[in-house]
Amino acid sequence: MIASAAFDDARARITPYVRHTPVLPQPSLRNEWHPRLTLKLENLQVTGSFKVRGAFNNLLQLDPAQRARGVCSASGGNHGVALAYAAWRLGCPATIYLPERASADREARIATWGAKVVRHGAVWDDAHEAALQYAAHHDIPYVHSFEAETTIAGQGTVGLEMLEDAPDADLFLVAIGGGGLISGVATAIKQRRPDATVIGIEPVGAPSMLHSITAGALTPLTAINTFADTLSPRMVSQTTLELARAHVDRIVLVTDTQMLTAMRWLWQEANQLVEPSGAASIAAIQAGLVDVSAYRRPVALICGGNAGAEPVFQAYQQTTKD
Amino acid sequence: MIASAAFDDARARITPYVRHTPVLPQPSLRNEWHPRLTLKLENLQVTGSFKVRGAFNNLLQLDPAQRARGVCSASGGNHGVALAYAAWRLGCPATIYLPERASADREARIATWGAKVVRHGAVWDDAHEAALQYAAHHDIPYVHSFEAETTIAGQGTVGLEMLEDAPDADLFLVAIGGGGLISGVATAIKQRRPDATVIGIEPVGAPSMLHSITAGALTPLTAINTFADTLSPRMVSQTTLELARAHVDRIVLVTDTQMLTAMRWLWQEANQLVEPSGAASIAAIQAGLVDVSAYRRPVALICGGNAGAEPVFQAYQQTTKD
Repeated sequence: MIASAAFDDARARITPYVRHTPVLPQPSLRNEWHPRLTLKLENLQVTGSFKVRGAFNNLLQLDPAQRARGVCSASGGNHGVALAYAAWRLGCPATIYLPERASADREARIATWGAKVVRHGAVWDDAHEAALQYAAHHDIPYVHSFEAETTIAGQGTVGLEMLEDAPDADLFLVAIGGGGLISGVATAIKQRRPDATVIGIEPVGAPSMLHSITAGALTPLTAINTFADTLSPRMVSQTTLELARAHVDRIVLVTDTQMLTAMRWLWQEANQLVEPSGAASIAAIQAGLVDVSAYRRPVALICGGNAGAEPVFQAYQQTTKD
Repeated sequence: MIASAAFDDARARITPYVRHTPVLPQPSLRNEWHPRLTLKLENLQVTGSFKVRGAFNNLLQLDPAQRARGVCSASGGNHGVALAYAAWRLGCPATIYLPERASADREARIATWGAKVVRHGAVWDDAHEAALQYAAHHDIPYVHSFEAETTIAGQGTVGLEMLEDAPDADLFLVAIGGGGLISGVATAIKQRRPDATVIGIEPVGAPSMLHSITAGALTPLTAINTFADTLSPRMVSQTTLELARAHVDRIVLVTDTQMLTAMRWLWQEANQLVEPSGAASIAAIQAGLVDVSAYRRPVALICGGNAGAEPVFQAYQQTTKD
């Protein structure tokens, strides 16, 4: 559904603006699971998550007149920060709708890049509706965080980098929120390496993709119970559902406690402080849900790092001697 | 004083055990100072700092009989963790003396790797004296955290990697504690690239190297006033003083507040949570103490990442939904 060339085109387009993030060099502290387990550190991406890839791939395809009039979106999370940054970088006005429950920290990060922030509604869906209306009223593009093919093609460029830096990898572990990341990554990978395995990871308390796959059609969750805010949309999208159905081999579910344990592991192993979604792929291995030993070279995608680190800086602030 | 080949030998020796850490891929979020500013992310090293390079370079030169009898050292910081890890990895018993003021977190990290921990004395110097006696009494090697040439040669391998991954770099910014890192890095770099500039960074409240250089001889500080615990020995060593005098172009001093601001910058820029020493090189640029714009490609060494991250995990623990 998304042509192989769309990923290569996206990559060429966004390369000046994003980082080719590193894979963690060997060796591991302890070879607990697989001596060749490879971590793709997308938490090192500009704005701290893969989302900026899709954001740039969208904005760079607008013509200058469109860009000058601005764009709009709804996100209380990494997409909002990423779009605000990409818009700032390209000199494009941006309006970001946030639900009330989005953190003050997230709002501050978005405002850093000069975007206009509008608080609306209790949850993302409310903010999304209002933002769609705003976009229609002002006749400006609404940049969807996971539905648009341009977004998905951008996110898929992570897959191209993993194939390049871990050419003999045969297993890819990717977290699922709205599905934009995994549908892009799985499509790009399977087009180039049909024999590779792609496993998706969702929270037990927000299995939006598994829910729709099992139902056989796009179906919203009735409840969300996870601390992984960036993995908890009520529903995936038609495009991500179809691409995941076609290209994702299996989905496993992790608990919040397992993600927290994996966050600690990433800190111990590599001093990488990540948000819960960023640790989901490790949680799946650590909890024994995926037997990585059956593979030649497993790659765990660490998709985002925007943890709330402020308590650490506050604590250090108390200890300064000048 | 340390032959060029010693660094290459050290690198060949330790390569199976340590990581060739990445440099941060371009671009920066904002090109505030220099479009080609490059960060060497040694906080991604096993055990979270460069110290493990020297630790392995020491232990790997012991014969099996020596290794079986064990090693000893004193460190309330990264050297202790690194040596404990290297000893665990090589099946060698280790005894680490800690001063009373070393944090419980640090003790736990050292104990993780099976080392015997002995608390002794108020500050490092006391623990160091007791550990020396213990080593003499048991006739086992004392692995000094920054004086030994084997240690310095190990730390210098960071310099070789920077030259390889940033071949056109002409400025290197390196923090100074006891001077083991900068004396190794500066020596290795100047042997290979005599025209490169190496600038050292110390805390205003613990300028141990500058103090001895200014005095013209090894001289202890009378007071330590910094929150950067890994940059605050009372005195550098004869070897590191001589090597720094020969190969370091200049030393600048940063305040704790400047280091904290740089810690926040590293988090904002690249989601890297680091300890104060790890942010010292950025603090020097950010505070305007080094004019990087005068150079072709400046490299800031991020030497350690062992910040106290526990408050973050505690906060997340409160929000888990299962």
